[in-house]
Amino acid sequence: MKSRWLLLMFLITNLFVHAQSPSTEIAPGVFMLKAGTADSLTPLRVFKPEIKLESMKQLPVSDLPFDLYDIRIVTTDRGCQIEVPLADDEQIYGFGLQIETFEQRGLRKRPIVNDNPYGGLGLSHAPQPFYISSKGYGILVNTARYTTFLCGSNQRQKYQPSVSGRQKGEVALTTEELYKNRGNGNGVHIDIPGAKGIEVLVISGPDVKRVVQRYNLLSGGGCLPPLWGLGFKYRVKGDAVQDSVMRFANYFRENKIPCDVIGLEPGWHTAAYSCSYVWSDHFPHHRQMIQDLKQQGFKVNLWEHAYVNPAAPFYEKMKPYAGDYLVWNGLVPDFTLPEARTLFTDHHKTLMEEGISGFKMDECDNSNITKADATWGFPDMSRFPSGLDGEQMHQLFGSLYVTTLDSMYRKANHRAFQDYRASGLFMSSVPAVIYSDIYGHEDYIRMMCNAAFGGLLWCPEVRESHSPEEFFHRLQTVILSPQAMVNAWYLQYAPWLQFDRDKNNRAEFLPEAQQFEQYSRELINLRMQLIPYLYTAFFAYHQQGIPPFRPLLMDYPGDPQASKLYDQYMIGDGLMAAPLYKDTNRRTVYFPEGTWYNFNTNETYEGGKSYLIETAFNQLPLYVKSGTLLPLAEPVQFVSPTSSFQLTCKVYGSPVSPVVLLEDDGESYDYQSGAYNTITLQVDKKKVKLQRKGSYKGKRFILKSYEFIP
Amino acid sequence: MKSRWLLLMFLITNLFVHAQSPSTEIAPGVFMLKAGTADSLTPLRVFKPEIKLESMKQLPVSDLPFDLYDIRIVTTDRGCQIEVPLADDEQIYGFGLQIETFEQRGLRKRPIVNDNPYGGLGLSHAPQPFYISSKGYGILVNTARYTTFLCGSNQRQKYQPSVSGRQKGEVALTTEELYKNRGNGNGVHIDIPGAKGIEVLVISGPDVKRVVQRYNLLSGGGCLPPLWGLGFKYRVKGDAVQDSVMRFANYFRENKIPCDVIGLEPGWHTAAYSCSYVWSDHFPHHRQMIQDLKQQGFKVNLWEHAYVNPAAPFYEKMKPYAGDYLVWNGLVPDFTLPEARTLFTDHHKTLMEEGISGFKMDECDNSNITKADATWGFPDMSRFPSGLDGEQMHQLFGSLYVTTLDSMYRKANHRAFQDYRASGLFMSSVPAVIYSDIYGHEDYIRMMCNAAFGGLLWCPEVRESHSPEEFFHRLQTVILSPQAMVNAWYLQYAPWLQFDRDKNNRAEFLPEAQQFEQYSRELINLRMQLIPYLYTAFFAYHQQGIPPFRPLLMDYPGDPQASKLYDQYMIGDGLMAAPLYKDTNRRTVYFPEGTWYNFNTNETYEGGKSYLIETAFNQLPLYVKSGTLLPLAEPVQFVSPTSSFQLTCKVYGSPVSPVVLLEDDGESYDYQSGAYNTITLQVDKKKVKLQRKGSYKGKRFILKSYEFIP
Repeated sequence: MKSRWLLLMFLITNLFVHAQSPSTEIAPGVFMLKAGTADSLTPLRVFKPEIKLESMKQLPVSDLPFDLYDIRIVTTDRGCQIEVPLADDEQIYGFGLQIETFEQRGLRKRPIVNDNPYGGLGLSHAPQPFYISSKGYGILVNTARYTTFLCGSNQRQKYQPSVSGRQKGEVALTTEELYKNRGNGNGVHIDIPGAKGIEVLVISGPDVKRVVQRYNLLSGGGCLPPLWGLGFKYRVKGDAVQDSVMRFANYFRENKIPCDVIGLEPGWHTAAYSCSYVWSDHFPHHRQMIQDLKQQGFKVNLWEHAYVNPAAPFYEKMKPYAGDYLVWNGLVPDFTLPEARTLFTDHHKTLMEEGISGFKMDECDNSNITKADATWGFPDMSRFPSGLDGEQMHQLFGSLYVTTLDSMYRKANHRAFQDYRASGLFMSSVPAVIYSDIYGHEDYIRMMCNAAFGGLLWCPEVRESHSPEEFFHRLQTVILSPQAMVNAWYLQYAPWLQFDRDKNNRAEFLPEAQQFEQYSRELINLRMQLIPYLYTAFFAYHQQGIPPFRPLLMDYPGDPQASKLYDQYMIGDGLMAAPLYKDTNRRTVYFPEGTWYNFNTNETYEGGKSYLIETAFNQLPLYVKSGTLLPLAEPVQFVSPTSSFQLTCKVYGSPVSPVVLLEDDGESYDYQSGAYNTITLQVDKKKVKLQRKGSYKGKRFILKSYEFIP
Repeated sequence: MKSRWLLLMFLITNLFVHAQSPSTEIAPGVFMLKAGTADSLTPLRVFKPEIKLESMKQLPVSDLPFDLYDIRIVTTDRGCQIEVPLADDEQIYGFGLQIETFEQRGLRKRPIVNDNPYGGLGLSHAPQPFYISSKGYGILVNTARYTTFLCGSNQRQKYQPSVSGRQKGEVALTTEELYKNRGNGNGVHIDIPGAKGIEVLVISGPDVKRVVQRYNLLSGGGCLPPLWGLGFKYRVKGDAVQDSVMRFANYFRENKIPCDVIGLEPGWHTAAYSCSYVWSDHFPHHRQMIQDLKQQGFKVNLWEHAYVNPAAPFYEKMKPYAGDYLVWNGLVPDFTLPEARTLFTDHHKTLMEEGISGFKMDECDNSNITKADATWGFPDMSRFPSGLDGEQMHQLFGSLYVTTLDSMYRKANHRAFQDYRASGLFMSSVPAVIYSDIYGHEDYIRMMCNAAFGGLLWCPEVRESHSPEEFFHRLQTVILSPQAMVNAWYLQYAPWLQFDRDKNNRAEFLPEAQQFEQYSRELINLRMQLIPYLYTAFFAYHQQGIPPFRPLLMDYPGDPQASKLYDQYMIGDGLMAAPLYKDTNRRTVYFPEGTWYNFNTNETYEGGKSYLIETAFNQLPLYVKSGTLLPLAEPVQFVSPTSSFQLTCKVYGSPVSPVVLLEDDGESYDYQSGAYNTITLQVDKKKVKLQRKGSYKGKRFILKSYEFIP
């Protein structure tokens, strides 16, 4: 009987497996497996990324650790199930912007969009049904449905594992003992309920970094933010009115604290929950305000969400193109439809033309699906005119929202740098940064590392704090992130004057307010110094798909310690950040192979070792790899189309690799049609030489001085 | 354009609605609506309850507050969606053994089986896709799939609500403010993904209590536990061996602490995770032990779960009838298959015949689906030979497990009274009690109330505590529950000697140990006194479907305060419990209409008012309704087939309603073939008279004395 059954199982499984069609190579090193009839609206079909073929071809070819036919796809009444081999010594990373976990093996992961994480399951602002193996390949399930990944956590009947200790009459006497994870599976099992067919992308390496590069190039290459986007952004209080906004602008300029962007929160709308997208009378002369701010070198960013209030001018027109459920009494546009996108951008175009540099797209993640009374999101059972249900729309919504508004800026040949709260697959090329309310500093640092696996940019924003340590450590971290932003949406004054929320709003400043303001000024100036280096790192992201901020394991694949590290990360090729987050100015920093320098003191450290290192409030927990030529700019108060950067190059150890800077207008897409220079900085006979190539007329980078650090 | 769209929406919706076939009355006052092709394995089809038609016919007929056609069922690619009208002044209860919430309106409820609750969503040991309206009807979705109920929490585009304050430029400055539930829906929207068709039962009232009675009678009537099941149960430590078990038995008898059942935990198996169901050598002479315990009047209950270890004698035979995933390396039997049930019961029959009175069925709920590393349960993507997937099997598993073992006892004409950790729909007639690890006392009391909506019995078990107050309040609560059980599975000694877990296991007893033992003895004796009254309440449960333990709103539907109360409950018709749970011996108790008496002091209280009342450790927080004739038995040390109860009747106020006791052997099903007496106790000319009717020969109840309380 047993054998008959197993034979049956065998036949069934193989039957299904053979229903799986042979793989096709959709891009160099990227293979697609298909089974059944895939959904008509998958992330790949909806977003149609412009594959960067040429750059992909330059990546080395590599074999997978298994045959593609070892990936089994089964389609049943329930949906599709996928089984991918997993070796005993294999680790798994990814699943998008994971918040709570870094190494994913042994876990049940559910990459579902949600404004809160829970229990390490993988709920996140930017989940992705996409993981990357330490063996150097990636598995991407091209679906907008909710997926579950059993990452070697569960055991099939057919694989009989060896008898474990727990079976020999051993008795558990604590619930912890009872329920501790004993995952011992040797496959990744993927569940996609409701799917009638599925497409799986297998992305080859040979290593994690190359898998990520391929993924980013497949997604159109990494985004290149405008130069001003790499400066400093400050969001004022939600109820700010025109005058208070101007007061804040003056505060920055009068006190010589650099600032490029001022962000307005809900108060600018006549109706905010849901949104009218119409200026309220709190801003009686908003055009004038925007012009005045522009005069002072500020860009303006506006908060909103996509739920369209009856007071919005395009409300009635939007009705036919919205889902059947309301959110906060607002329509939920079906952005897969050109009509919905056009209605939305036609209205926003006016705001753009008034001078708005971008938007903060809030609430586009789901309302907390782990709470019974958080019901402001549209339900999974929603139906949309395009045929999507609420579940699929949730997984796509943030990405649809951001691409809708980004396309408007692209058409106008403006590079935007926007904020959004939900993302997903194939968003690498969109110049936008994800933010969150969660506000756990250690999580925020872990998210810096996890974001890199999925071509996502993450902003560990700063708001209130409970101690000077927490405040400055958070400020240091955000300075060392894709977007240096203080989000003071519920603070009357700058948090460095008072980081306690209530006292801040009562204008009770800290006794050290002046000193803390000075420290903050110094940190923000350090950010301005790093702009050329960061722009270069983003250029590599754009051209080669190399994440500008990434976990150590991408650069040091052989290093077992690096493979676990989620609280240190590389910035470009020469810098490593090791943020402080434990209410003390000292932390243990691990250094991979080679020699490393302390950015602040030039002290050196030996690779393969850990050191206990102290960093002051007004310094950055930043380390330089030997052989790095680091161009530092003289800080400017803001980045303008004409501002040029006086460079001081610091040369660490030897041999020194040259560095190539991108020089262009910094805010249009003209560089794509060749309007840019490459500036090569290299050491030649104990001197640093600058070599400029290209057709761009402007001069953004001037070599002022250099310094050799032995 | 708008109108065209709305017309389209209208047509589509109605098209789907008309796909819905007309309703059929499947039992008096129970209507079934069907749409599409329902699953072949629904709870109703799997458990086929024996409907108590005659009793149902005696319930009054009543109209629904809406036409059955107002219930819309839509079948789409996603699955089935149901929409049920909801009036503005309507409240919703039920969804099975809800843990965190009582009034369910405005919430998103997901009645999914899980060993932990979360966020009020409705995850529970015994979830049910079944709710009851304050308007006096019930909606039951006959499915084993995971369902989501939006209980008036979300708003459809077609119902345009009035403009809310939040739209008028009002700005939220706290996240609480932002995300607070603003549910304003006027329908209950139900989502059943994956379903190709659905059956909905509409159960008429006229009131909540009658809806519940109909549901219970539809489910075969409430269970009648064996008389001994209403006594006291004690579970010894998990690693107990034969000698320590006997020492415990002697402890109870020598110290005159009543005890009917001793429960053994995992230690009795040769393999426990997964289970071998074979006695380990820690019990070298287990048959002798069981006999000796029987001599002393003890029943023995054995812990197990359903995951079959390779060391189980029937492991190989079970393989073809198990799911494709293992749990703790054990097979997961597909209990929908007669082969699996037979293999399981054939083995367990030996244990039953050795004298085992029942089992504690652990781990049959899911591993915590809200934690990434809790992966011991079988996955939702599992496939079972019957065709069920893991999702549907999870919703049925506990019920399949308990009915499998209960059927074995029924065949042997033994009434079992078992413990299980997962249940669902249509289990009213199964003599088994649900337990949990959660251990929040307030939750445990709320669960007493919620269990009543779904024909479930719940045991708020006592283990360790952090204070004398907590310990005695918990003991009082469990004494006033379907099963008076101390579950000391990780305590060496009785918790009343030391309720701190570590100290208990180090044999460090409390200074008050002797006094606390005496209090506990008194409380347990009070339980033994209540046995005739409780047996009577269960008889009404069996005959008329009236829950023996139920929230006040069932008896006082018009009372607005009663409609919210989840921490007081009725026991039978004359008693009300108001457990203490706040580390103080005083609490506010609300009294519905009429006059009430303090069970301990005979003090009286006026209905419609609340009083602050103190209850000592050795008393019960119990209140008697005026007009109640309360028979109290002289406590026995244990209930035997021959034990008779000397009754002292307490008569509270007047007029007094007679009470009818069931007299039978108390442990077989012979009463079903008429082998029982009814004993009517009533007041006649200032005397209490006993009238016996029936063919049962034994005399269990002897009227010893009575007392009138003015």
